Amino acid sequence: MLSFWQDYPEIQNKLRVTQELMVDRLKISNHDIKTALEAMALQGGKMVRPALFYLFAGLTAKASDEKLWQQLIKIAASLEILHSATLIHDDIIDDSPLRRGIPSIEAQFGKDVAVYTGDFTYTVYFELLIETMAGTPFLEKNAKSMKKILQGELTQMQSAFETTISIRKYMKAISGKTAELLSLSCLEGAYFSGADQKTQHLAKRIGRAIGLAFQIYDDLLNFTVGLDEENKPILTDVRLGIFTLPLLIARENNPEKILPYLQAPEKLTREACLELSDLVAENGGMTGALLIANGLTQKALADIEKLPDGSNKVLLTQATQALLERKY
Amino acid sequence: MLSFWQDYPEIQNKLRVTQELMVDRLKISNHDIKTALEAMALQGGKMVRPALFYLFAGLTAKASDEKLWQQLIKIAASLEILHSATLIHDDIIDDSPLRRGIPSIEAQFGKDVAVYTGDFTYTVYFELLIETMAGTPFLEKNAKSMKKILQGELTQMQSAFETTISIRKYMKAISGKTAELLSLSCLEGAYFSGADQKTQHLAKRIGRAIGLAFQIYDDLLNFTVGLDEENKPILTDVRLGIFTLPLLIARENNPEKILPYLQAPEKLTREACLELSDLVAENGGMTGALLIANGLTQKALADIEKLPDGSNKVLLTQATQALLERKY
Repeated sequence: MLSFWQDYPEIQNKLRVTQELMVDRLKISNHDIKTALEAMALQGGKMVRPALFYLFAGLTAKASDEKLWQQLIKIAASLEILHSATLIHDDIIDDSPLRRGIPSIEAQFGKDVAVYTGDFTYTVYFELLIETMAGTPFLEKNAKSMKKILQGELTQMQSAFETTISIRKYMKAISGKTAELLSLSCLEGAYFSGADQKTQHLAKRIGRAIGLAFQIYDDLLNFTVGLDEENKPILTDVRLGIFTLPLLIARENNPEKILPYLQAPEKLTREACLELSDLVAENGGMTGALLIANGLTQKALADIEKLPDGSNKVLLTQATQALLERKY
Repeated sequence: MLSFWQDYPEIQNKLRVTQELMVDRLKISNHDIKTALEAMALQGGKMVRPALFYLFAGLTAKASDEKLWQQLIKIAASLEILHSATLIHDDIIDDSPLRRGIPSIEAQFGKDVAVYTGDFTYTVYFELLIETMAGTPFLEKNAKSMKKILQGELTQMQSAFETTISIRKYMKAISGKTAELLSLSCLEGAYFSGADQKTQHLAKRIGRAIGLAFQIYDDLLNFTVGLDEENKPILTDVRLGIFTLPLLIARENNPEKILPYLQAPEKLTREACLELSDLVAENGGMTGALLIANGLTQKALADIEKLPDGSNKVLLTQATQALLERKY
C-alpha cells in the first residue's frame, strides 16, 4: 500500500526506512509472533501517520541533516507502532479475521496472545519515545494523546446501541479515536524539525481537521459499500450498534422514520439495511455529513496555505487532497 | 488486605496514601469504568510491590524529607498501577469472574472494555513514570521490565500444553512474569531514595529471589488447595496446560508415570487430578520445589543481612518471612 505514495518518492523512501526500523524494533523472542508482527509492519497500509509527520518535518528540516533525520525516523516509527498497537487490540474487539489483507494477530493466535502482543507493541512505542523525546514536553503529550485515543474508543463502545447518542458525542469519540493521533503526527513533525510556534500551531490544527474529515468520509463509505453486491455484508457499523454522522443527521431530521431501525440493529436484514441506507440519504444524512467533511477538508487546505512557502507545502496540499478524496 | 501490614503501621499508612493517589490518577470520563477501577485500587490486595519499594526506600530516605516522599509515593503507585494493568489483561485471558473478591473488569464490562481499560491503566502508569523519572535511567528500565513481563506471559502461554517443557523455560517464564516487577520495585526503592550502588545491587537481587520464591510457593499451593473439598476446582493450572515446577520435577524423576496425565490435561477428572497430585508428591515434585523455593528465600534473607543496619532492615527481614511463609 506504500504505492499510494508513488508520486512522492521522497516520502515513499522514508516510509520504507521506517518499516525497516519497525521490523527491527518489534523483535520478540517468540518466533511466530515475531513473524506476524513483521508481516503487519511490512503490509503497513498507507502509513498515513508517519507520512503526515514527514510532510510536516520536511517543511523545516534540512535534507542534509542526517543526525536529525535518524531521530525523525524513530519518531515516525513510534507513531505507526502506536497505531499498530491500537489495531491489534481493535481486532480483538471486532473479531476481525483480516487486517490489511493478512490474518489479524487475533485470528492467527487467538485473543489471549493478541492482548499481550498489543501490550508488547505499546512497550516498543514507549521505548522509542524515551529514546527520542527525553527532556521535551512530548513524553507527556504522548501519554495524554494515548489517553484521549483510548477514551475515544471507550466512549464509542459504551455508547453503542444508544439510539439517542448526540452528534456532539459522536464528534468527541472520533476526535479521540482518529483525529488525536493524526494531529499529534503533524505537530511532532513540525516540533522535532525545529519549526516555529506558528507552524506548530497550524500543524496541530491541520492534523485534527484531516483526522476528523478522514473518519467522516470513512463513516459515509459504510453506508454505500457493498450495496450492489448480494454477498457483501452492508451497513456493518449500524449492525454493531455504531451510529455515525450520516445516520445521526438523518435521525435529527426524521426521527420517526429512522428510530425504528435502531431498536435492534444487530437483527436488521439485508433488505432493512437497504431501506435504512435509502432513508439516510433521503433525510439529508449523506449530504449533511459530506458537507461537514468537505468543510473540514477546506479548513485543512486553507491552514496549509498559511504555512511557510516551499516545495513541501505543495506536496502537503496534494497529499491532503489525495488522502481525503480517495475516501469518497 | 492491607491488614497484612497491620504490624507495620508506617508501611500500612504509606500504602493507604498510595491507594488514594491511584484512585485519583485512574480517573476516566466513563463513570462505570471509573468506579470499577476505583474499587480495584481500594481492594488492592497486599500491595506487595509498593510495600517492598517502601521497605527499601526507608533504608535510606529521611522520614522528614517530605518533597522526596511525595515523589516516592508516585513511584510506588506506578508499580501497583502497572501490576493492575497486567491483572486486568490477565483476567481477559483467564476469563476470571473475580479479582480480589470483587468482579473483574472483564466480568463487569466484557472483554472489549477490559482490553481498553487495561490499555488506559498502562497510560496512567507511563504518566507517573514521566513525571518522576525524567533524566534517570529508569524510564528505559521500566520499558525493559515491561517487555520482560510480557515476554514471560507470552512464553508461558505459548508453551501451555507442552509436555516436554524444560525446567529452565519454566524458570524463565516466572522470572519475567513475577520476579521482574518485584525486583524492579526493590531496586527503585533503593535508587530513588538515594541508596549507594551496593544497596541498589542487593535490592535488585533480593527482589528477584523473593519474586521467584513467591511464584514457586504459589505454584506449589495449586497442587494442594481444594483437595479435601468435594466442590472446589483442583489442579487448575495443570488443567489449563500450565505445567509448573512441582510437576516438572516429578516428570523428570518418573516420566512414565507422569506423562500420561499430561496428554489431555483439560479433560482430567477430579479423580485423575487427585492421583496426579499424589504422584507429584511421591516422585519428589513437592519436596523438590519446596527446597528450591526455600533456598531462594534463604538467599534473599542472606542478602538482606548484608544491607546497611537499621530498623528497616529488621522490618524487611520480618516482612520477607511473612510474605513467603504465608504461602505454604
